[in-house]
Amino acid sequence: MPLPVPVLPEGVDPAWLPVEALRPLGVRRTLIRGSGPLVDTVHGEVADACGRFGGKVVRGEEGAARGAPDGARYDLLLEVSAAEGLGAEGFAFGRDGGTTTVTASGPHGLLYGLFHVVRLGAAAFAGPVAREEHRPATALRMLDHWDNVSVHPVMGQVERGYAGGSLFWRDGRARGEAERVRAYGRLLAAVGINAVAVNNVNVREAETRLLTERLGEVAGLAEALRPYGIRTHLSVNFAAPMLLDGLPTADPLDTGVRAWWAGAVRRVYAAIPDFGGFVVKADSEGEPGPFAYGRSHADGANMLAAALAPYGGTVHWRAFVYDHRQDWRDRGTDRARAAHDHFAPLDGEFAGNAVLQVKHGPMDFQVREPVSPVLGAMPRTRLAVEVQATQEYTGQQRHVCWLGPMWSEVLRFRTDGAAGPSVAESARGGIVAVSNVGDDPFWTGHPLAQANLHTFGRLAWRPDADPCDVLDEWIGLTFPGAPARLADGLRAVLRGSWRTYEKYTAPLGVGFMVQPGHHYGPGVDGYEYSRWGTYHFADRDGVGVDRSAATGTGYAAQYAKAWAEVYESVDSCPDELLLFFHHVPYGHVLHSGKTVIQHIYDTHFEGVEEAEEARRVWAGLGDLVEPARHARVAERYEEQVRCAREWRDQVNSYFLRKSGVPDGQGRLIH
Amino acid sequence: MPLPVPVLPEGVDPAWLPVEALRPLGVRRTLIRGSGPLVDTVHGEVADACGRFGGKVVRGEEGAARGAPDGARYDLLLEVSAAEGLGAEGFAFGRDGGTTTVTASGPHGLLYGLFHVVRLGAAAFAGPVAREEHRPATALRMLDHWDNVSVHPVMGQVERGYAGGSLFWRDGRARGEAERVRAYGRLLAAVGINAVAVNNVNVREAETRLLTERLGEVAGLAEALRPYGIRTHLSVNFAAPMLLDGLPTADPLDTGVRAWWAGAVRRVYAAIPDFGGFVVKADSEGEPGPFAYGRSHADGANMLAAALAPYGGTVHWRAFVYDHRQDWRDRGTDRARAAHDHFAPLDGEFAGNAVLQVKHGPMDFQVREPVSPVLGAMPRTRLAVEVQATQEYTGQQRHVCWLGPMWSEVLRFRTDGAAGPSVAESARGGIVAVSNVGDDPFWTGHPLAQANLHTFGRLAWRPDADPCDVLDEWIGLTFPGAPARLADGLRAVLRGSWRTYEKYTAPLGVGFMVQPGHHYGPGVDGYEYSRWGTYHFADRDGVGVDRSAATGTGYAAQYAKAWAEVYESVDSCPDELLLFFHHVPYGHVLHSGKTVIQHIYDTHFEGVEEAEEARRVWAGLGDLVEPARHARVAERYEEQVRCAREWRDQVNSYFLRKSGVPDGQGRLIH
Repeated sequence: MPLPVPVLPEGVDPAWLPVEALRPLGVRRTLIRGSGPLVDTVHGEVADACGRFGGKVVRGEEGAARGAPDGARYDLLLEVSAAEGLGAEGFAFGRDGGTTTVTASGPHGLLYGLFHVVRLGAAAFAGPVAREEHRPATALRMLDHWDNVSVHPVMGQVERGYAGGSLFWRDGRARGEAERVRAYGRLLAAVGINAVAVNNVNVREAETRLLTERLGEVAGLAEALRPYGIRTHLSVNFAAPMLLDGLPTADPLDTGVRAWWAGAVRRVYAAIPDFGGFVVKADSEGEPGPFAYGRSHADGANMLAAALAPYGGTVHWRAFVYDHRQDWRDRGTDRARAAHDHFAPLDGEFAGNAVLQVKHGPMDFQVREPVSPVLGAMPRTRLAVEVQATQEYTGQQRHVCWLGPMWSEVLRFRTDGAAGPSVAESARGGIVAVSNVGDDPFWTGHPLAQANLHTFGRLAWRPDADPCDVLDEWIGLTFPGAPARLADGLRAVLRGSWRTYEKYTAPLGVGFMVQPGHHYGPGVDGYEYSRWGTYHFADRDGVGVDRSAATGTGYAAQYAKAWAEVYESVDSCPDELLLFFHHVPYGHVLHSGKTVIQHIYDTHFEGVEEAEEARRVWAGLGDLVEPARHARVAERYEEQVRCAREWRDQVNSYFLRKSGVPDGQGRLIH
Repeated sequence: MPLPVPVLPEGVDPAWLPVEALRPLGVRRTLIRGSGPLVDTVHGEVADACGRFGGKVVRGEEGAARGAPDGARYDLLLEVSAAEGLGAEGFAFGRDGGTTTVTASGPHGLLYGLFHVVRLGAAAFAGPVAREEHRPATALRMLDHWDNVSVHPVMGQVERGYAGGSLFWRDGRARGEAERVRAYGRLLAAVGINAVAVNNVNVREAETRLLTERLGEVAGLAEALRPYGIRTHLSVNFAAPMLLDGLPTADPLDTGVRAWWAGAVRRVYAAIPDFGGFVVKADSEGEPGPFAYGRSHADGANMLAAALAPYGGTVHWRAFVYDHRQDWRDRGTDRARAAHDHFAPLDGEFAGNAVLQVKHGPMDFQVREPVSPVLGAMPRTRLAVEVQATQEYTGQQRHVCWLGPMWSEVLRFRTDGAAGPSVAESARGGIVAVSNVGDDPFWTGHPLAQANLHTFGRLAWRPDADPCDVLDEWIGLTFPGAPARLADGLRAVLRGSWRTYEKYTAPLGVGFMVQPGHHYGPGVDGYEYSRWGTYHFADRDGVGVDRSAATGTGYAAQYAKAWAEVYESVDSCPDELLLFFHHVPYGHVLHSGKTVIQHIYDTHFEGVEEAEEARRVWAGLGDLVEPARHARVAERYEEQVRCAREWRDQVNSYFLRKSGVPDGQGRLIH
């Protein structure tokens, strides 16, 4: 039986699945062979498209003869064939004799094969195509929602959310809008995402109860997401046995605690048989964890892994652990070192179903960071790499900042130097993004931020894809039949937007310089004398953090030799990371040939000019974009340009006041 | 009939009216002559004291013969005699032939005369004293409570409150605790305060309704405060006619609007016959006001004054008007100028019952500001001077900062130079403080902050009093029979505390350098690039704001000639205000002989040492102070010292990094 395609609420944007995107499929004749719920989903998709555009779909049995049951020729054959060795999610694609064939070993693969056809559009039905095999690079492609059940007094309904409320929760309760959640799952499946954590990693009281008496609310979400192949995960509170049932301890080696978790997990799987597992932020920024009992992070993770193992569940243990009560006077402590210091010694100690989830950089999702050395330091541990789709530090979905190129750089970074494995290859535990989605009609607040969600999914599936090709795919799907001027305009405002944002914010990898708390807009000294370990040490002579082994904090030595050598030396360190690794005089000459101070001035003027130019380009697309979408983006460009000027002027004034070096081009600095 | 003395709730501190403070009165024989409610209050006070300590009180009729009705000799005669020309609140005090006599022209004067006797203690009954006449310097001695009825999402129950919740309101409703409010009124009357505004000058929806349908709650407070001679005032929303009754405008010249206010005032006086009047913050920090209709502040104030006039009410119109959306790049705009620019041209235009309420300095209650030039610029306007007892910028009642010396300096400042009137003399409209009181058991959070409330009242009555004498009086009352070591210790930690606080915070009058929003703790650049008009312009060469007429914003020229000349020149400007008026190089030599940079370093080291010393002194008083009070203060000293060190290190590091000038004494700067 075909499962009906979810109906979007009135006014909600279809994102990269507008009806038109399915026209090439919907005008054709399709044969589907296979059985089970996900095949029903595939059937429903094709049937819906055919219903709109006049095509036809026939359902056959898995393993039945290839010949068309009604003797007609089919344009598309979608079949599950257990004989194929393509893995649970892989599929083969080819076209021959006028028929496009998608063959998968299992129903998940068929779902992804279907959306492959959708993404290809008309090209899926053109010319002969030799058989291609498609498999995801990693088995787990996940979105972590930092959604709170109860509204947090400071962080609100969604921590670091810039797209309205939560799709899942409102004012302490599940919203119960299964249709919209299913539509969300459909969007995610169309880019290959297969896992969602439904609550914030900071787990307060209401959220802790999702594990037990409020489990039904989680089961409701799982039911809505399941038809699109998405497994539901839950962020849990390490102290849950104490908070929920008054146990005297949460010690991971305590038999009572272990029994408690075993029981809790048993009940979770009774309610949600395909439950994915837990996400845990422990001993981090005040959250409880195993340190209180003298136990290691491996002890903590393995205790939960043991409870999940009988059911095939996984624990995602976050490596975001550092001293968040640091003394700014103490230059010996380096927050960048913390994850490696804490976790690298534990390599090999984590259970097979424990995943260590590592932020892509050593700090916290800045616009530019080096790749975390943890990602190259734990070969005997299942690592997941975590990126941030929600634009906490990259413009909060008020600025256009397409992060595809940054994520691509990270995923392709070879941790041992040119010959070693890439981050994506090391991340056997998965690729995870913090979600940028809320109940906003455009899903992501800024309509163009949809590109980040789309790009994340596609890169998680295939990390070596060219992000610009992915962007073109997003443009093609979201704006079906876009004339060249529109597609060119979208490329123009998106492709370079990450570097534009980098230009007008904190320079040369030094990071932060944002307003404390909400993290929006410039605050050059905002974190300079704080407890958060986020410093730039600018004085009248120079700026930057000496993280060399020779004279600094030694962070550079956490990398494998090839990179340690590159970063250790001011001469070989890449310009864009210079101030992350070294404290240099303002007159230091970069590889670019510019001094540091002139680089600061130039990039800040350029960044604003580029933002203004993007605004201009967008304004010129008014005749090609629906009015509501065009207006929303135009309005946000006003704010982006205003804010970019504020960044430019504050950063330039700050460094002019400190350095006394005038701008080489004599521009106005206040 | 004597009115019973209010009973404090269990655990609430009696502050400067402990039972013991009334012993000298309570052991004696007193004759009271007079009638009416306030005389009943006086009678109740004496009766209560006599009941505790064995004295006797007899009530006679006003105007009856002086001879004691029972033929006995009286130690104290308290009498109202309309024949005396002492004004409504004045009284005569003297002692002759073993009898102390207080004679007042009216019952208010008798109340203040009674508390004069209480404050004198045993000295009121010693030796002959020639007749002294006591009159308050100003008819209005007021506390403005910035208490919200509904909890504000950012500011909480009490805006800038550091003493728990509000005495008047809780979670949207009146608390209805009349006895405690009456006890509060008693404390205020004992220091001469005679007016209280019961709600915040930022008037939101719930507070706007106090004027109309919730007037009964205000009447309840007025009833509780009335027995101690305190008139109740209300902060009102200028747009109330629109918000409450849907009028299309709040234009002060619109006849419908004027009629609306006339009706509202009529109903207020029907409920509260001795209602004091309105407090208005208009066209300030986003509050509505007459500017929206092209009207002047005088138009706005006079409209409300006209409504109040028939009933003897007053409108307090605040002069705190400035551009709170300033561009930090624009050095031509100077927030310090704003009040004078807005109001001085309106001198003579305000109605007789309109009081222009002026903050004592041109900025916002910084630890050091010059006196506002408005206070010398409007001789034809009834001015009130507003100080801030709540320690928003002076340590938030976690730091000891006794403000008596600052207020005394302000009140005695002669706006025309040596020969002219003092601020207190110019402030014919009254002396007002923002309250530092809440529902904290010690009333003021920090037990020693009670001294600020006490000192304010006493200086408002007599602005030329020596604040150190006032402090001694507070010590004597609050710690009856304090041994010399305790009294000396209290003096040691309080007398210099304002200057100590000044030393470790923003230097030389430059102000701010606090954390934005909550205003606690250092943030040297916290407001440097913001819209609030609060800058220091520190660069690698120097620091300070050029407010001279010759080369700066011209603010210095807003003063009368004598002061304008003093402030205009770097040479004559007092050190403590140098950076308020001038931008100078770090090497500039102060009158003290030190360079600016060395002064910054030295004062910051000294300030911390003084705070540490005060903590030590307090610790040594543990055997002489009740444990709860001692512990509360000791705990706050820990925080004060921690915070003072943070100020020292951040300010010193900031200026070392900027100036590059090492400390002359080679101390550690981070």
